[in-house]
Formats: sequence, C-alpha cells, structure tokens
Amino acid sequence: MKEFKPYYAVIFTSTQNENIEGYAEMAEKMEALAKQQDGFLGIDSARNDVGLTISYWESLDAIKKWKQHNEHLVAQLKGRQDWYNWYHVRICKVEREYDFNS
Amino acid sequence: MKEFKPYYAVIFTSTQNENIEGYAEMAEKMEALAKQQDGFLGIDSARNDVGLTISYWESLDAIKKWKQHNEHLVAQLKGRQDWYNWYHVRICKVEREYDFNS
Repeated sequence: MKEFKPYYAVIFTSTQNENIEGYAEMAEKMEALAKQQDGFLGIDSARNDVGLTISYWESLDAIKKWKQHNEHLVAQLKGRQDWYNWYHVRICKVEREYDFNS
Repeated sequence: MKEFKPYYAVIFTSTQNENIEGYAEMAEKMEALAKQQDGFLGIDSARNDVGLTISYWESLDAIKKWKQHNEHLVAQLKGRQDWYNWYHVRICKVEREYDFNS
C-alpha cells in the first residue's frame, strides 16, 4: 500500500459584490503567483451561487508564508474593500483521499 | 476567545461525462438526504470546468455512515457508471477558520 503523507487544504468560500471590476485579472495573477510559492501543491476553483477555491499546500508554514506575501496582502485588502461581500476561510489537514477514473 | 471545536470536510472534486441525464435530480435528492443525517453540518457546491462539492461533518464516523447509506450507495454506483468521468475524494480535518463580512 502506498504511504500517504498528510498535506493541507485552504478552503475559501465567498460571495461577491455586483461590481467586480479588476477581479478576474487579480485572480489570475494571484493563481500564477501562488503556483510559484514553496510548498504549493495545487488549486481548484468554481463559482455559481457561491465561489469555492481550494488550494493545497505541503505545510501550515507554506500557507502562512503565502498569506503574508506582499502582493497577496494587497490582493486581500482589495478583495475586502471592493470585491467580496463575504468570505470564509478554513485551514484543513487532508487525512485521507481516493479517486475514481472511468 | 471562542473555543474552536474541530470538525471534518469531505472535498469531492469531479469532471462529468457529456450525458448526465438524471444527474440533477439525484444530486438534489442526495443533498436533501445528507441534510437529514446525524452529524451533518453543511454543504457547498459549484461547477465550472471542475465540480467542487464540500460537505461538513461533526465526525469521521458520521462521514462513514453517510458513505454507507443505502440510497447513497445506489447514487455512488450510478455516478461511477454514468455521470462521472473522474472524481477525487479528500477527507479533511478543519483545524482553523475565520471569516469576513463587508
């Protein structure tokens, strides 16, 4: 059996304001920047009534460093000021996983 | 400071086949059924290129029972046979959370 090494997920759930000018560019920029960070493992996003973005990281330390990254801090501030009506962040330890391929 | 009681998240990531006849009805039925289970805390879903469904539970035991629920087993089989091209399931412990309201 393959050994499983736990890793971390940040679940970001949000609803946006009506005017989200500049948001798409910033989201794209932040995703590209996140991918360059140490300990980054992956990211998935989808939005309908709520937006869900889940990023995966090797350690809590990697998550902390990304949260405090200068350009990311600017994006977070802009998000709170302009784009998000509400958001919720959950830091999770991935303890088990499995998949299916047809 | 408010005491934080850890709970669990099941992250279900998927891509679907072209023909998903019957899927929407089943998804609605399963969400309604999940909400009736002991230990259920909440659910969020969104789908664009990939589908993300995250359900929240009080315990690993509650997750296990839901996975083995008879009607849910039928839905899982149908999903593998007909609707999903691929899916990935992650069982996570939510260790910390915070939110923002504008």
